[in-house]
Amino acid sequence: MNKNFSHLDEQGNAKMVDVGHKDHTERKAVAEGKVFVSKEVLEKISGKISGKSDESSKGGELSKGDVLAVSRVAGIQAAKKTAELIPLCHPLPLTSISVDFELESPAGKDNIQAGGEKSSERVEDRKESAIKIIATAKTVAQTGVEMEALTACSVAALTIYDMCKSVDKNMTITDISLIEKTGGQSEK
Amino acid sequence: MNKNFSHLDEQGNAKMVDVGHKDHTERKAVAEGKVFVSKEVLEKISGKISGKSDESSKGGELSKGDVLAVSRVAGIQAAKKTAELIPLCHPLPLTSISVDFELESPAGKDNIQAGGEKSSERVEDRKESAIKIIATAKTVAQTGVEMEALTACSVAALTIYDMCKSVDKNMTITDISLIEKTGGQSEK
Amino acid sequence: MNKNFSHLDEQGNAKMVDVGHKDHTERKAVAEGKVFVSKEVLEKISGKISGKSDESSKGGELSKGDVLAVSRVAGIQAAKKTAELIPLCHPLPLTSISVDFELESPAGKDNIQAGGEKSSERVEDRKESAIKIIATAKTVAQTGVEMEALTACSVAALTIYDMCKSVDKNMTITDISLIEKTGGQSEK
Amino acid sequence: MNKNFSHLDEQGNAKMVDVGHKDHTERKAVAEGKVFVSKEVLEKISGKISGKSDESSKGGELSKGDVLAVSRVAGIQAAKKTAELIPLCHPLPLTSISVDFELESPAGKDNIQAGGEKSSERVEDRKESAIKIIATAKTVAQTGVEMEALTACSVAALTIYDMCKSVDKNMTITDISLIEKTGGQSEK
Amino acid sequence: MNKNFSHLDEQGNAKMVDVGHKDHTERKAVAEGKVFVSKEVLEKISGKISGKSDESSKGGELSKGDVLAVSRVAGIQAAKKTAELIPLCHPLPLTSISVDFELESPAGKDNIQAGGEKSSERVEDRKESAIKIIATAKTVAQTGVEMEALTACSVAALTIYDMCKSVDKNMTITDISLIEKTGGQSEK
Amino acid sequence: MNKNFSHLDEQGNAKMVDVGHKDHTERKAVAEGKVFVSKEVLEKISGKISGKSDESSKGGELSKGDVLAVSRVAGIQAAKKTAELIPLCHPLPLTSISVDFELESPAGKDNIQAGGEKSSERVEDRKESAIKIIATAKTVAQTGVEMEALTACSVAALTIYDMCKSVDKNMTITDISLIEKTGGQSEK
Repeated sequence: MNKNFSHLDEQGNAKMVDVGHKDHTERKAVAEGKVFVSKEVLEKISGKISGKSDESSKGGELSKGDVLAVSRVAGIQAAKKTAELIPLCHPLPLTSISVDFELESPAGKDNIQAGGEKSSERVEDRKESAIKIIATAKTVAQTGVEMEALTACSVAALTIYDMCKSVDKNMTITDISLIEKTGGQSEK
Repeated sequence: MNKNFSHLDEQGNAKMVDVGHKDHTERKAVAEGKVFVSKEVLEKISGKISGKSDESSKGGELSKGDVLAVSRVAGIQAAKKTAELIPLCHPLPLTSISVDFELESPAGKDNIQAGGEKSSERVEDRKESAIKIIATAKTVAQTGVEMEALTACSVAALTIYDMCKSVDKNMTITDISLIEKTGGQSEK
Repeated sequence: MNKNFSHLDEQGNAKMVDVGHKDHTERKAVAEGKVFVSKEVLEKISGKISGKSDESSKGGELSKGDVLAVSRVAGIQAAKKTAELIPLCHPLPLTSISVDFELESPAGKDNIQAGGEKSSERVEDRKESAIKIIATAKTVAQTGVEMEALTACSVAALTIYDMCKSVDKNMTITDISLIEKTGGQSEK
Repeated sequence: MNKNFSHLDEQGNAKMVDVGHKDHTERKAVAEGKVFVSKEVLEKISGKISGKSDESSKGGELSKGDVLAVSRVAGIQAAKKTAELIPLCHPLPLTSISVDFELESPAGKDNIQAGGEKSSERVEDRKESAIKIIATAKTVAQTGVEMEALTACSVAALTIYDMCKSVDKNMTITDISLIEKTGGQSEK
Repeated sequence: MNKNFSHLDEQGNAKMVDVGHKDHTERKAVAEGKVFVSKEVLEKISGKISGKSDESSKGGELSKGDVLAVSRVAGIQAAKKTAELIPLCHPLPLTSISVDFELESPAGKDNIQAGGEKSSERVEDRKESAIKIIATAKTVAQTGVEMEALTACSVAALTIYDMCKSVDKNMTITDISLIEKTGGQSEK
Repeated sequence: MNKNFSHLDEQGNAKMVDVGHKDHTERKAVAEGKVFVSKEVLEKISGKISGKSDESSKGGELSKGDVLAVSRVAGIQAAKKTAELIPLCHPLPLTSISVDFELESPAGKDNIQAGGEKSSERVEDRKESAIKIIATAKTVAQTGVEMEALTACSVAALTIYDMCKSVDKNMTITDISLIEKTGGQSEK
């Protein structure tokens, strides 16, 4: 109830919170998000991951994994740019970043619903296929790394979008949220 | 059916698409997305926008608008960094970027649903309040600006998250998608 | 007398001073500077700050504050880029940055003089109105943050210039200097 | 009288001006500024430039020119970062940037005065020595390059400050203004 | 004989060459370079490329390709940062960048010699295995892209070094040169 | 034999190594590399360094040193960008960076050979002149700075290339390697 925007002073002006008095402690945050993609995109990408590639499809399928490899690199690099992208974030010496993916096909996952009317039309088109992104950031610092994990997740998603948009023009990036946060107190 | 990932060569290796042969034409893209926030966050932010501020709340309410002002600046600056963030994007001379917001409260909007089981728990907590972000990018170039609009939208959303996380720890960034694209052909 | 440029070696070549042996201590620096603007610019901007806005001017005046909000964000972000902009600066984990403004009108301030002949002509034109910028940077590090405070101040001033140049083409950025420095020894 | 902030929309929100309809024309801008420095700093730096170096002082004097060489590089690189530093600036394909210096000693220049009471104390200390910076930027684009010239000038000044602050702790960066602008119309 | 450093003015000061008068033409540059690596590194990486992977080694071999995938992304992104890294380079709207690799084993290539005494010791250790990098950059601009191709090549090489240094501590990056340049005149 | 790529997980996916458990210790790395240049380039640059300049050539020769001054600044700034350029590098608070040069002429150095057939043709052309770059990076951190030293060296080399390419179109950057590494354990 008496919680306040820590990034605004009494006059409501933006400020970077002073964390100079806080202890340097180990901190970790995990964020996840999804890109809803067409069945076609999912099949092209899953060629590598599901390991179903046989000789005939090799040239093609094998390398589709590069979509995820490029997205992973983009997510890791973006985490390091968080303080540059988010105006009031503190620069942090990240000790670890990782970005992982899970492919979700309609068969393996029931009842995916995306928000609102417009999206539900899309669900038909997409046949409820999704690429799930899980980003983990760690540091030993005076403030937490949730924004770093969320930024890695968002930019990894944007990169998937960029690489797949020649195949699917109706993707949606969705459900980006913080899954886990440990270390430090809760405020940043 | 025969659509392919334009960002992968025949071996599946990442490449930046060659757009040197394309015409310089006017291009525009509009992306939108939402941040689901608690009722408390929405009320704090809407102080300025709804114009309901009376004298007594002035010091506080008025300035809450800075959350959106900072988010807008972050989105605009991020659009200019798109080619740095998304590995296979081309650097483009953006001629215009704008980021706008709409506040959605449960009263003004029925039936907001966010994807999946976990999220639906959150819906209760959030009381279906949301900040909608609309980002528009324009250029005169050889390739389109959908990634610029989507990046502006994503980073504006992350900035809202950052500035409101001391008040609400359960926000979700969702439904980021391309709303409009004009100019050029469809492939990038 | 025997002070030397610490950023040059014995041959006069540029080098980054080795601070590896220094203690990590709390350090703070405050810099300030001014942008001389026309009376018209000052009035447009002060609409919000002086609180003189009446109903009729609301739509217009209220929002002029965005000039300062955008300038503040630009200053804060520039402070984080100091080591990228100033070649021999060390990268520092800033713990806090803030940028504040004071509006100075001729009525409230006598005797403003700006350096030299050319500028004194301008003073007439500008009617001695100014926006004062105060930037504060803090860190816990092996070297001081005066360049971070000065950089925040300079880029905030440039941003004001950019946003007001459609109204006033004769602005001058002036009197950027270090006001306070605490923590560490005096050399960087 | 009816001039308006082109970087604010009707609601006063920040926006990047749409320049898509403008012609690509040659544009040039020249900005200048000064760093007031102590007589000692000026003498150390002018060793190279005035050509007064004799054998005995060679090791030392010759290399002092690196202060200006590093400042020049920093100014040139900063001009290329203008759109990253100033939130509403357009990214521009700069075709040329140059940064030049003039040393002003009390003998060669009478009556330098810096703004206000505090500064006039400093003048004594500084003995009215100054390093003048002249930055020129050119492009063929849809909008002007005054911010690029001003940014080059400001960052060159900050770099001089950084490199000389071990010798002089009372420098002031001052009188940064636009000297010349050609090409395009006057608004950006 | 009368060729001069185009990046220095008559006083020898650095400047960015003015290319405003040049035509916008298609330009292309190809650079290549090598990283000498141990036989062990080459074998680990070639697992994927040579296609020799059998079932037993699958988990390991298959994924080694990520070294090259990450290096490729790093090279492409670095090309876009050329003007930021090389002080006097012009910002260019790259229309295409690609980075390719060839693995060279002692069997397939005789007589590789690296410069000088110290290196020739290393040759023994390395058994003359190398990863060759070929980077191609294209633009339609007023100046050439050789630095973009060379920068892509260099940063791709540094990334290979980084990713393999836990296995081989004696790598050398070598023979980075321009292989092809077309479009425009020869000077930049 | 059981050494592994520390930047790949068990599936071969790229990851940033977790260094959160490591001690903060002083670390130092020295890298060196060479740019093979024509005799003409070497003579122009060595004007300053060898001190052979007589009065008549002063204006010209003296200032050629700016090639090295600009290269040095570029190398120092690049070291600070290492984590941005090399995807899996950790951001590190560098405490010191220096870049030095040695000019190697055929007279002073016998038997320089550059790798392979093609290069040996070039040796004739170049007359075995080289600019040697030595870059030193230091930090107090949880991981080493070899990539920072190698990056400084590579970008300093690229900058020499850029500044001399109007005089010599056949330069080669070569023999970039790690010369010394102290502090921490050997793996990064």
